[in-house]
Amino acid sequence: MTEQPHERSGAFETDRSAEVVAASFAAAPDERLRDILTSLVRHTHAFVKEVGLTAEEWAEGIRFLTETGHRCDATRQEFILLSDVLGVSSLVESLDNPTDGHCTEATVEGPFHLVDSPARALGDTIDETGRSGEPCLVTGRVTDTDGAPVPGARVDVWQADADGHYDVQRPGEIPDGNLRGLFTADADGAFRFRTVVPRHYPIPTDGPVGALLRATGRHANRAAHIHFQISAPGVRTLTTHLFAADSPYLDSDAVFGVKASLIRPFAPTDDPARAAADGLPNPFRHVDFPITVRRLQPADRGSRGYFRGPRRS
Amino acid sequence: MTEQPHERSGAFETDRSAEVVAASFAAAPDERLRDILTSLVRHTHAFVKEVGLTAEEWAEGIRFLTETGHRCDATRQEFILLSDVLGVSSLVESLDNPTDGHCTEATVEGPFHLVDSPARALGDTIDETGRSGEPCLVTGRVTDTDGAPVPGARVDVWQADADGHYDVQRPGEIPDGNLRGLFTADADGAFRFRTVVPRHYPIPTDGPVGALLRATGRHANRAAHIHFQISAPGVRTLTTHLFAADSPYLDSDAVFGVKASLIRPFAPTDDPARAAADGLPNPFRHVDFPITVRRLQPADRGSRGYFRGPRRS
Repeated sequence: MTEQPHERSGAFETDRSAEVVAASFAAAPDERLRDILTSLVRHTHAFVKEVGLTAEEWAEGIRFLTETGHRCDATRQEFILLSDVLGVSSLVESLDNPTDGHCTEATVEGPFHLVDSPARALGDTIDETGRSGEPCLVTGRVTDTDGAPVPGARVDVWQADADGHYDVQRPGEIPDGNLRGLFTADADGAFRFRTVVPRHYPIPTDGPVGALLRATGRHANRAAHIHFQISAPGVRTLTTHLFAADSPYLDSDAVFGVKASLIRPFAPTDDPARAAADGLPNPFRHVDFPITVRRLQPADRGSRGYFRGPRRS
Repeated sequence: MTEQPHERSGAFETDRSAEVVAASFAAAPDERLRDILTSLVRHTHAFVKEVGLTAEEWAEGIRFLTETGHRCDATRQEFILLSDVLGVSSLVESLDNPTDGHCTEATVEGPFHLVDSPARALGDTIDETGRSGEPCLVTGRVTDTDGAPVPGARVDVWQADADGHYDVQRPGEIPDGNLRGLFTADADGAFRFRTVVPRHYPIPTDGPVGALLRATGRHANRAAHIHFQISAPGVRTLTTHLFAADSPYLDSDAVFGVKASLIRPFAPTDDPARAAADGLPNPFRHVDFPITVRRLQPADRGSRGYFRGPRRS
């Protein structure tokens, strides 16, 4: 032999396959990465053994993953969609954002937060077409877990139109930035904007994730919601949804995003003076969504920057 | 509500996340698919909880999977490569091909079996360039587990050249089909062909899988081998490797493909008469690889054809 192996993981044996593979990661310099990969290998091998996955089934799995990757581009993220329909996104968000009974609960970001929301002034409408659905006023206030306001908090919102489409799904047809808005809360942490009542809609089903849902008899619908992402210096960024209390699919949301605390009535409101003041037709609907965020703590973990592409040598 | 949910998986709760998601698959008409997905969801959620995966770490995971998908094309299969370096391919092959102590052990197919091997006559060389490495004679015989020959068995072989490259990795530079061959065994199940001694080589490291190996301090080398895929009517197709006994990395193969029973000496041979008869320079190397395959049995499972792309409605 002219070269020495870098490590000796030992010959492969089915009975101890996970141990053999985990041993190959024993020299990983980053302890966290080693722990993640060891657990991933152990659970993946346990899954394969538990179901007795055949080579042909795994070949189909590879084809499914490849097709999923090929459906990802600048405006479509099929892997996030896959993570969503398997409940993994919801689980990660929940673990990553413990509420301690105080914070607003987090939910999945979803696959459509792909473009920057246009900056808009408080009170503006995010419905640029004026024909996206039933007029609605959204108000709220961002506070921290001590009840103190978060002045100038950035409130990024995005939602689908009455046909269930985001702007990025209909380029050239829906104006870019329609039903998206980046608002800056006032000195009291308050925000307000005009929009339309969101409607339930199906996630995209023309890709491999849609095929998975059909093969398993699952519907593709998401309960009606508006996405929110709240950020501010020194505050842990919160990604969540506001759900409409009268929406169907609250009990069977396709991406497991619904949490009871995030369901709010979009109240029919007959108030001509307020409608005029806020630039809405009367009657309109009104929903108030108070948001509680958590100040960043030293223990908050972030990304370690694994897998940042290959090293160019 | 104007529409009824198709099923009620219940609100998402972290503590019973896997149960909630598994319940969404309860109506899947195919029992096997339901079992696979239930186990997949259970192990995936257990993994996420065990390591406390953060949202940023999962976002990096999504980026990694997406990049892996984007590296897959007609001549590169990065997902198979990922499956290989995590030992999943080797595990699936091993489970799918129990030897019962009789059959030749199976190994991973690897990512380079992407093009049809050119049909060649017994005794032909697969080295079209005549400069790929040290001349070598490979002989063998395909029999079943009762010792009976498998006449006319198809013996598909492929290997890298002395620089560690398969033809598909160097289009225009290496002739298509170089170091590949599809042979038809004779009436006694015997096969023979000329080639060059295989050399260890690194798997492709210019993609996300290479980044993973670097991040974890793993080398990328495969022990020297020739791929074999044996097929015949009524016989279970066998995908395996022939490993060179004097190769480095037999104990730390990057894709966990090495099994002790597949290691054979490539014996230096000084036999001018045989060299002349077989069209080889003298001295040459010779390896004999007897292969035992299993007759198909009624219980052999195949693919069910899940996920065959979206239904066009």
